[in-house]
Amino acid sequence: MRFGVDVGGTTVKIGVCEDYKVVDTFVVKTTKENLFKDVCEGVVNYAKEHNGTIDFVGFGIPGVVIDNLIVNMPNIGLTNVNLNDVAKKYFPNAKIASTNDANAAALGEALVGEKSSSSYMVTLGTGVGGGYIIDDKVIAGPHAATGEIGHMYIDSKHEFQCNCGLKGCLETVASATGIVRLAKTYYNDYKTKLSKDTMSAKDVMDAAREGDALGLAVLDMVAEALGRALSIIAVTCDVDVFYIGGGVSAAGKVLLDAIKKYYNKYAFYALKNVRIELAKLGNAAGMISAAYLG
Amino acid sequence: MRFGVDVGGTTVKIGVCEDYKVVDTFVVKTTKENLFKDVCEGVVNYAKEHNGTIDFVGFGIPGVVIDNLIVNMPNIGLTNVNLNDVAKKYFPNAKIASTNDANAAALGEALVGEKSSSSYMVTLGTGVGGGYIIDDKVIAGPHAATGEIGHMYIDSKHEFQCNCGLKGCLETVASATGIVRLAKTYYNDYKTKLSKDTMSAKDVMDAAREGDALGLAVLDMVAEALGRALSIIAVTCDVDVFYIGGGVSAAGKVLLDAIKKYYNKYAFYALKNVRIELAKLGNAAGMISAAYLG
Repeated sequence: MRFGVDVGGTTVKIGVCEDYKVVDTFVVKTTKENLFKDVCEGVVNYAKEHNGTIDFVGFGIPGVVIDNLIVNMPNIGLTNVNLNDVAKKYFPNAKIASTNDANAAALGEALVGEKSSSSYMVTLGTGVGGGYIIDDKVIAGPHAATGEIGHMYIDSKHEFQCNCGLKGCLETVASATGIVRLAKTYYNDYKTKLSKDTMSAKDVMDAAREGDALGLAVLDMVAEALGRALSIIAVTCDVDVFYIGGGVSAAGKVLLDAIKKYYNKYAFYALKNVRIELAKLGNAAGMISAAYLG
Repeated sequence: MRFGVDVGGTTVKIGVCEDYKVVDTFVVKTTKENLFKDVCEGVVNYAKEHNGTIDFVGFGIPGVVIDNLIVNMPNIGLTNVNLNDVAKKYFPNAKIASTNDANAAALGEALVGEKSSSSYMVTLGTGVGGGYIIDDKVIAGPHAATGEIGHMYIDSKHEFQCNCGLKGCLETVASATGIVRLAKTYYNDYKTKLSKDTMSAKDVMDAAREGDALGLAVLDMVAEALGRALSIIAVTCDVDVFYIGGGVSAAGKVLLDAIKKYYNKYAFYALKNVRIELAKLGNAAGMISAAYLG
């Protein structure tokens, strides 16, 4: 049996996968202290109940993982968890693998998408992350930092302060947080029905779709930053296709079309019209991709 | 016998290599029309004269190569040369491989440098190129455009027009041409002994080393652009080491130290102090690296 583990703070989703599909799923409710113990017991119990063998367990981790060592999961508050030790104890005969969740999502899209030799996924959530895939393998890099494109310098116009300590990072404008920041910054410059105090990134994107002037202005700025970022990624590591995922990508075609417009404006001539697509995997993305890490 | 072919306009350098060293070398003088015919005959004749078999022939090409098809060599004026066809005719039993010269140079540095899992080389010549190596293999990308980092948007201050059609490209400021452009742009702002009409990039870098105010100002701008570019490459594809090569890198330590200063200023916190080194291979780089493409 092939298990894909999507690690969250207190809820861990585990998918039993076949043929790149989740055929069964279960949830482990746990605490920070017992997280991996509870997850592994859950997998062991599931296999026992279903008379299956545990062949593969893949972990998608919200944090930094290098060679199955979880260096840090900042939002959960765990550091230095050695997954090899954990797995050896609970399923000594299974193959295990792990990567961070942005890499896992990128692999998932590559696996379910049209066959490509390489792809780069950009995940637009609270922050901006990414993942680079060559021949259906995650390229994580020696510091597991490939895909930390949220911290690419891109915004020389505002140079907003980023949480990471730098200024002008892509995620200061292209994340959900960045979208609200831009909408607040330009609030008095455009006519809008948005509420300055309560608007969310989704509200801003919805407003753009409905023709709201502020929404459209922010959409344009976000798309320009992303189009430029993709043009830079393309010359750094040339790929067949870019995937745009994460919560912000729910904005859909209006965002995708605007990103494409700016990508083609800024792309090197040999790389115009590289495919840019919305991510296809929904909620199951984390589990499927984790299940196929190895 | 393992041959590395460094293709130039009218002179092609061929190295016979063993243990990552050039043990013999010969030059083929040719014309655009007869280039690959002359090169292959040269290899065949050399093997015959030395009673050797032709096991491997690697080609470093100044242009775009995809799967042994030379799409374009702009400075030579040849397009659509199928190296498989050429090689089949002259050495049907040899393995052949090819890549562009910037990728070849990057591989060469990775092979002779301290062992690394991945590296990115930046070549500072008339333009700026690059190459990305993982596990001693060139990552060229599906459009053979990985490493076209000369066309990464970096210079929002001047946004000089680039030959490629875009503005603000890295090579508009960090190439030999870019260095002279910057020196001319700021010529009246700094005290200098440089001649506005005749200075070369080497003159500007030499002046910087001698404390010339204009030279130092230009060096600082070039290093800032490169440090920023490396910080962007690092989050896009995290590597163990960056190599700085090409003619401009002859400026040496003064340039390297300035690039490191700006890299560490702009790098994502998890990637500060990644190794940045001057390229070690001299004139033989093209031949050695081509010889070890496969």
